[in-house]
Amino acid sequence: MKDMLGREEVLSAKEAREKILSHSLPAVSREYETDIDISIGRILSRDIVSPEDLPAFSRSTMDGFAVNSPDSFGAKDGMPSYLTVAGEVFMGERPDFSIKKGEAAKIPTGGMLPEGSDAVVMFEHTSNIADTMIEVLKPTAPGENTIQAGEDCRKDQTLLKKGHRIRPQDIGALAGLGITRIWVYDKPRVAVIATGDEIVPAESPLKPGQVRDINSHSLYGLIEANGGTAIQKGILKDTYEILIKAVKESVLNDDMIIITGGSSVGEKDLTAKIINDSGEPGVIFHGVSVKPGKPTIGGIVNNKPAFGLPGHPAAIMVCFDLFIKPVLKLLAGETEKLSAGIKRSVKAVLAKNISSSAGREDHVRVSLEKKDDVLWANPVLGKSGLITTLVKADGTVIIPLRKTGLEQGTEVEVELF
Amino acid sequence: MKDMLGREEVLSAKEAREKILSHSLPAVSREYETDIDISIGRILSRDIVSPEDLPAFSRSTMDGFAVNSPDSFGAKDGMPSYLTVAGEVFMGERPDFSIKKGEAAKIPTGGMLPEGSDAVVMFEHTSNIADTMIEVLKPTAPGENTIQAGEDCRKDQTLLKKGHRIRPQDIGALAGLGITRIWVYDKPRVAVIATGDEIVPAESPLKPGQVRDINSHSLYGLIEANGGTAIQKGILKDTYEILIKAVKESVLNDDMIIITGGSSVGEKDLTAKIINDSGEPGVIFHGVSVKPGKPTIGGIVNNKPAFGLPGHPAAIMVCFDLFIKPVLKLLAGETEKLSAGIKRSVKAVLAKNISSSAGREDHVRVSLEKKDDVLWANPVLGKSGLITTLVKADGTVIIPLRKTGLEQGTEVEVELF
Repeated sequence: MKDMLGREEVLSAKEAREKILSHSLPAVSREYETDIDISIGRILSRDIVSPEDLPAFSRSTMDGFAVNSPDSFGAKDGMPSYLTVAGEVFMGERPDFSIKKGEAAKIPTGGMLPEGSDAVVMFEHTSNIADTMIEVLKPTAPGENTIQAGEDCRKDQTLLKKGHRIRPQDIGALAGLGITRIWVYDKPRVAVIATGDEIVPAESPLKPGQVRDINSHSLYGLIEANGGTAIQKGILKDTYEILIKAVKESVLNDDMIIITGGSSVGEKDLTAKIINDSGEPGVIFHGVSVKPGKPTIGGIVNNKPAFGLPGHPAAIMVCFDLFIKPVLKLLAGETEKLSAGIKRSVKAVLAKNISSSAGREDHVRVSLEKKDDVLWANPVLGKSGLITTLVKADGTVIIPLRKTGLEQGTEVEVELF
Repeated sequence: MKDMLGREEVLSAKEAREKILSHSLPAVSREYETDIDISIGRILSRDIVSPEDLPAFSRSTMDGFAVNSPDSFGAKDGMPSYLTVAGEVFMGERPDFSIKKGEAAKIPTGGMLPEGSDAVVMFEHTSNIADTMIEVLKPTAPGENTIQAGEDCRKDQTLLKKGHRIRPQDIGALAGLGITRIWVYDKPRVAVIATGDEIVPAESPLKPGQVRDINSHSLYGLIEANGGTAIQKGILKDTYEILIKAVKESVLNDDMIIITGGSSVGEKDLTAKIINDSGEPGVIFHGVSVKPGKPTIGGIVNNKPAFGLPGHPAAIMVCFDLFIKPVLKLLAGETEKLSAGIKRSVKAVLAKNISSSAGREDHVRVSLEKKDDVLWANPVLGKSGLITTLVKADGTVIIPLRKTGLEQGTEVEVELF
């Protein structure tokens, strides 16, 4: 598509992302059973239904006396209720007695309420007048200072839904119900293909003109940190035959394909052709009004998302956040209502003017510094081909499509790396 | 210490945290060497110094012609500079020719600048007039469209400091320098001791009066998610002899000790006694004006931090965030300037009034819901002994010490789980 001036029309980041996400990409179909303790961050592949009531019995939440609440009604300082102590409840044991009208039982926090009692009076609101007799100085409502059987979770209630990402408290709740093994989705396999005739493996000695493979390693980290498994396909020669073979192999074995490098004109076209020739529908967008990251290619081949990313390290980071992360969440099976809208970010004050061209979304790298209790965001200068600008930066500030810059002193939202 | 009314004086959360952190707790002394790809989130135990210049040679950032910049000075559309094409640069190879005055060389993005050239003219600003002759239509500054040798990182420059937490872009930078193995701190070992005569392992069938161990599992998740290794010491009997033996063992073998349960008066005192008797200085604070989490104990025994947490699941989550996480970061060796101040949070509008007692910091669990483009925070009601309130919640809203509540419609900051 061309615009009115005959230029190639490029999509905004939002349009490009929505175009990919509008294709219904299913979660990976593989699942496995795991121990709850090592399931942090994994996505449930099946609903969790409570096998029993939690707690299994009514228990006290205070140290005090278990009572039949009507026995305390009307009690006050000058006119206490007198109750006979029928026994004592011990932790972890079922009381071997019950409470009759006019009786009470000593009970610790967490103790099981004896039959006949429905509430607990705190020690502070009682006084001992004999070995087996207490005064209750305050009325107690039914259920007060107790957790009733099933109050936390009822038998057959759905505790957690398929698509939920496991957090520490979820592990606690599962343990509470006696569920120590759960079914989770397999991590999506993301194939990473590096291209570029000048690129050599990181562990290789360099010959003149060669550079080491940076992007496969950054991507490895990004993929693993976002719930995927990185499959390193290595550094491949920029030829049609070699690349199409590798991509077709990944379409069969993996869940997503990322091709990096190829930022020059001829190579870009090769990546687009490879994606188009690997399966339907092929390239979905080619070029996005984002800096860095303009030459990004997004596509789908036989239901597997495939991306062509420019070779610049900074572009890789930005494109991963904008396009690959949301797709990875879909493949991972995560259906959390809010996960898309929540970012790890801080507010800061811009320490210098930043300029930007209208018509492109600028992702400016900034480092953060606290001075006199103000958090300042300093733009990190340097070409987008430099990796150390990313190392010096703590996050990015986004200048929207229609803005031509931001002034020093503006409050900005810094999305943290 | 008692206040004027004779009540036990308790510290604010901030005071308690500062009291623990004021003891200089050293990072764990153990380190190990690891592959960069699996080092995400690990903390560097040694500085990383660049072994070479990055890039190792001056390279083009555009497709165009490498030139000696003065040859282009004064060039414009009507009055171009004429240059002889001396050769072509290929990716990944050192050019086998040099540029003399009046010469240029075809060069791709990423190509090595031939000797005698110092800048690149983009194709768009040239035109071919013969096989070996081009017109340059615009002047080019020295260094334009190039990255100079060492511009990204100089030999012997410190790229990353000891105490830095590894991010994906750091892995990329290390790969770029040919550094594929790095030294990182061992994860701090955090011993978790569960107590309570009613507590049984999660996989056990329940007898009346018993409850399953929830907190060891939530803590396992919290510790692992925050860079520690959880050492499960199991569920121990609430006796002095058994507990002091376990704590003394952990003081020798582990880096931090957490004892959970014991929320009733007698048990609290036992935990405090155990911490006092295990080493110097012992208990540092006992009781904090936080809800949930008031009976929390913090201490240090022979340079190892030791905490006694109340048994309520909600209190465990709050206390972990307030007291244990910052200590864990110290032990992990992380010295990041900003890490303490940055939280994963979102702004939301409170959907209901919340009341709170002045003089305590209330951590209220809320669930988030988007309606008509507004993000609402709904307080999750329920006693702090319930684990499912934590499962239903997406995060917490903090009501500060001196406030008596927050009104419906207030904008609040929700700290996400």
